[in-house]
Amino acid sequence: MKVILNQDVLKDNNKSAAYNRKLFNDHQTLVINIMSSPGSGKTTLLEKTIQALASEFKIGVIEGDLATEKDAERIRSLGAKAEQINTNGGCHLDARMITKTLPKFDLEEFDILFIENVGNLVCPSGYDLGQHHKVTMVSVPEGNDKIPKYPIMFKRTELVLLNKIDLLPYLDFNVEEAIQDLKEINPLSRLIEISARTEDGMQEWIYWIKKAYKQFKV
Amino acid sequence: MKVILNQDVLKDNNKSAAYNRKLFNDHQTLVINIMSSPGSGKTTLLEKTIQALASEFKIGVIEGDLATEKDAERIRSLGAKAEQINTNGGCHLDARMITKTLPKFDLEEFDILFIENVGNLVCPSGYDLGQHHKVTMVSVPEGNDKIPKYPIMFKRTELVLLNKIDLLPYLDFNVEEAIQDLKEINPLSRLIEISARTEDGMQEWIYWIKKAYKQFKV
Repeated sequence: MKVILNQDVLKDNNKSAAYNRKLFNDHQTLVINIMSSPGSGKTTLLEKTIQALASEFKIGVIEGDLATEKDAERIRSLGAKAEQINTNGGCHLDARMITKTLPKFDLEEFDILFIENVGNLVCPSGYDLGQHHKVTMVSVPEGNDKIPKYPIMFKRTELVLLNKIDLLPYLDFNVEEAIQDLKEINPLSRLIEISARTEDGMQEWIYWIKKAYKQFKV
Repeated sequence: MKVILNQDVLKDNNKSAAYNRKLFNDHQTLVINIMSSPGSGKTTLLEKTIQALASEFKIGVIEGDLATEKDAERIRSLGAKAEQINTNGGCHLDARMITKTLPKFDLEEFDILFIENVGNLVCPSGYDLGQHHKVTMVSVPEGNDKIPKYPIMFKRTELVLLNKIDLLPYLDFNVEEAIQDLKEINPLSRLIEISARTEDGMQEWIYWIKKAYKQFKV
């Protein structure tokens, strides 16, 4: 019973995701779904990313949270359009929530839309939102064991951002081990080391986005 | 339909939780359910807690994770009994998983049983495991916005451990603001500042456990 319902839920979700994806493609808007634990630094990453890309691209953001408008407000203060989805207890965004929010964006206007998922290393991994790329962030203070302990998330992501590398001198984190663990779980993914706060490594992430955009527009 | 199933699931869970709680009470085992985001430091806290309490109390641990035996192995290496539950993708422990694991413990022998829930600030909050106390950890690198952004978790917890205070000098975290935010969401809860790594503030947490144990045995 539970399994059947679950499959139905995912089937419904996939339908909505396909609808979203068609809309994104029709309007030539590249969509990136960013996932992580609570507090890994997704919003700070987006703040810095918007600042780096704003002169070249028109950027929109959908923010997912259980409660509050805090993240959308942070993005708006940079002059970018942001819409907040509050899941009221739900541990992930689903494709229908995105479908319902899209009318608030004139997609024709936007080159890139970032979706910041609910802070959670489990639930968001199963839900296709219609995005073109899935990016997962993990941060140095969370420790080395996150990649092996949450394999489903890391199996389904193509890029891992290792954030807060400015804290490496104060913590026992082994970057080589993280790269190795990721390779074992998902040989096709890659890892970029960054500090969204100090902007260390941000060029590599920005380059990744620009390349993704170029490939999308071809 | 979805809501009805959900209520049934929670009803079933509450039955199992009541069964567990009776067992814990019959055997005079105090049970503490510890929740947090992935990587906040639950296992390190338990390692240090076991070391601090081992001479006075017989301690057992149930470890919840999507995958791996890593956490149970860390606890066992200290000489304490630990059983690992792998949820295979599930984002929280439920009471039935605990019921199934309890026969592996001779409860009569144990004074205190810690349950380390799956790293997640959303899902575990709704599931009573039969514990006597719920403790939620949040760590300095996760940032100040975690308490307002995950209100359901913090509404349902009686003690918040603010971990990794050794990183305060390197980060923009406002402890007073965290205490204030918690008070607004849950006036009956309290916050203890600790660093499980440097053991700063650990005495207060250990004192809290000893007091809880004393009250439980009365």
